[in-house]
Amino acid sequence: MFEFEIEAMDERSGARAGKLHTPHGIIHTPIFAPVGTQATVKALRPSDLRELGSELLLSNTYHLYLRPGDRLIRDLGGLHSFMGWDRPILTDSGGFQVFSLSKRRKLDDDGVTFRSHLDGSSHRFTPEKCIEIQENLGADIIMVLDECPPPDDHDYVRESLARTHSWAERCLVRHKTSDQALFGIVQGGIFPDLREASAKYLTALDFPGYAIGGLSVGESKKDMYATLDVLDPLLPQSKPRYLMGVGAADDLVNGVLRGIDIFDCVLPTRLARHGAAMVTGGRLNMSNGQFAHDPEPIDPNCTCYTCSHFSRAYIRHLVKANEILGHILLSMHNVHFLIDLVRKLRSAVFTGDVGHFAEKFLQNYERIEPDSILL
Amino acid sequence: MFEFEIEAMDERSGARAGKLHTPHGIIHTPIFAPVGTQATVKALRPSDLRELGSELLLSNTYHLYLRPGDRLIRDLGGLHSFMGWDRPILTDSGGFQVFSLSKRRKLDDDGVTFRSHLDGSSHRFTPEKCIEIQENLGADIIMVLDECPPPDDHDYVRESLARTHSWAERCLVRHKTSDQALFGIVQGGIFPDLREASAKYLTALDFPGYAIGGLSVGESKKDMYATLDVLDPLLPQSKPRYLMGVGAADDLVNGVLRGIDIFDCVLPTRLARHGAAMVTGGRLNMSNGQFAHDPEPIDPNCTCYTCSHFSRAYIRHLVKANEILGHILLSMHNVHFLIDLVRKLRSAVFTGDVGHFAEKFLQNYERIEPDSILL
Repeated sequence: MFEFEIEAMDERSGARAGKLHTPHGIIHTPIFAPVGTQATVKALRPSDLRELGSELLLSNTYHLYLRPGDRLIRDLGGLHSFMGWDRPILTDSGGFQVFSLSKRRKLDDDGVTFRSHLDGSSHRFTPEKCIEIQENLGADIIMVLDECPPPDDHDYVRESLARTHSWAERCLVRHKTSDQALFGIVQGGIFPDLREASAKYLTALDFPGYAIGGLSVGESKKDMYATLDVLDPLLPQSKPRYLMGVGAADDLVNGVLRGIDIFDCVLPTRLARHGAAMVTGGRLNMSNGQFAHDPEPIDPNCTCYTCSHFSRAYIRHLVKANEILGHILLSMHNVHFLIDLVRKLRSAVFTGDVGHFAEKFLQNYERIEPDSILL
Repeated sequence: MFEFEIEAMDERSGARAGKLHTPHGIIHTPIFAPVGTQATVKALRPSDLRELGSELLLSNTYHLYLRPGDRLIRDLGGLHSFMGWDRPILTDSGGFQVFSLSKRRKLDDDGVTFRSHLDGSSHRFTPEKCIEIQENLGADIIMVLDECPPPDDHDYVRESLARTHSWAERCLVRHKTSDQALFGIVQGGIFPDLREASAKYLTALDFPGYAIGGLSVGESKKDMYATLDVLDPLLPQSKPRYLMGVGAADDLVNGVLRGIDIFDCVLPTRLARHGAAMVTGGRLNMSNGQFAHDPEPIDPNCTCYTCSHFSRAYIRHLVKANEILGHILLSMHNVHFLIDLVRKLRSAVFTGDVGHFAEKFLQNYERIEPDSILL
């Protein structure tokens, strides 16, 4: 059901191009997945995402569990049917959001108790509960419950890792659905010894895929890439690898060069709502006065709907006037930008050019700092 | 350039079906025009509006004059090019919005001075200025500057009418563009004698079309329909008639029965942003708990994108979660509802069924109160 074929590989870098088979179709990797936190990618319709070439969406277990509720979604035929998306979906475990609640949650070895950010009501996630919720949601790829600790406290990360590993085993035991692939999540902060321990522990459990968690949470880019370098030879080549919550263009390029197959991030849609356009050279703040009379599209080389139809002057007007169409058009452009970038990296793996492509892209790129992660 | 052909007419009611030729294509009447106040119909792309069958959009001179500025739009090729809409556009004169500013404007016989709602800056509209702005915007149909007085003070309305008529003449003198049709606006409040005087005065000036202003501003439905009954025989049959700012479904039906050809209103998109769906029976408040588990579309008989793809339960979730997609999907549905209703009225004029269709529709309809008009 979840066969993963590697179609091409760049021997020098470890970048690979593959196909992951799922019940809702094939995911061509490497791939960038837009995030539909509340069962919608903000400001985009499923038909827009299809036209943008999205083959995978991520949705958030924590949010859907609280509202509208995973059982309601199950009763309406599951998340695909509920949100009108018939291609693959990946759900996270909900753990990341719960741990982000900081003062509103209490952790123990069995699970985590927390208060809803919506109404303050009390809830509890255990590994078993998170699998049950994800079964109700019915995504193609689901995640184990893990703890995402601060990345730079060795003692704490080591202690946390034991809990994360025991939770991974419990998830595996609880997981019964054959039409959902349960991925393990490697943790270990920025510490090579702990990352190695985590990779070895989890690969021994033989998950159908491995996520890399606990990155893009405040550590330096150097530490992120070094961690990916540590993991590349430790994770099985034959299984898909998913770098969680990473969506800055330079991180996608560097991730692909380190053997990553799947990425997701709210960055393109969040930047859109802040009036920013992602471009090859970095980021354009579209409310800037320099665009007021500019008849050019955001990116003259871009083929998206937005760039095919509208000027920077019009986009700037929409952003200044706080019009929803500004969010829509910038979301389309930014999602297209990342999907297209990863698609180009995929093509370059086939042609053997991925190293050259990456070098050229990164030379031209001013790094976009992702905004702080908000619930 | 602006030939108006009457294709069919219902002898009993005065309802008519016609074609209005414009530089950007034919408008099939009767027609409902969605409103794109700030050069965008809120939450909808031009391609969405095209798919919804929109043949005419309205945009607001007051808003565009203030932001981004009519000269900027002219320099970028005009409003059609700026907003990516190649079908007909109608602009109002800006007067209605200025008069809505109440305490922020000062009226004299030559024009009106007002403070911007955006930054408090001082501006002045005269009949000549409003034509100049509308020339810069470049809509197909443009409007004279008029005063929209409180509808029920006979002395004030009479005095105001003299000003409105003199402004209409000044607009006609100032109007030079052959690719823009300048419509006169009949005023006169709820008073038959004043409406008659206004209609006679303006028709003598031989405008290519006539708008009916000053309705749907607080008067009763009975007074609105009585006013349309007064005007129906007074306005020339051979010219298009536009009932300004009216978009409640029962008003569209009653307007068509009284010989109206063009309607516009923010109602469908405003209701959408308030989480309400327009349906044959009236209005559904989609945040209502009764829809939480409802797998049916908003209207099982509706053919719009929203009703073809999504359940009431999903729409309710989007509304409760304040997701932009909720605004998008409800805007599509509501605009489709009104365009479709007027299209059905048009068809019924051809088949001779319009009286019967209207009667059946109105029996089934609980009137939707338009929200108070806001800037």
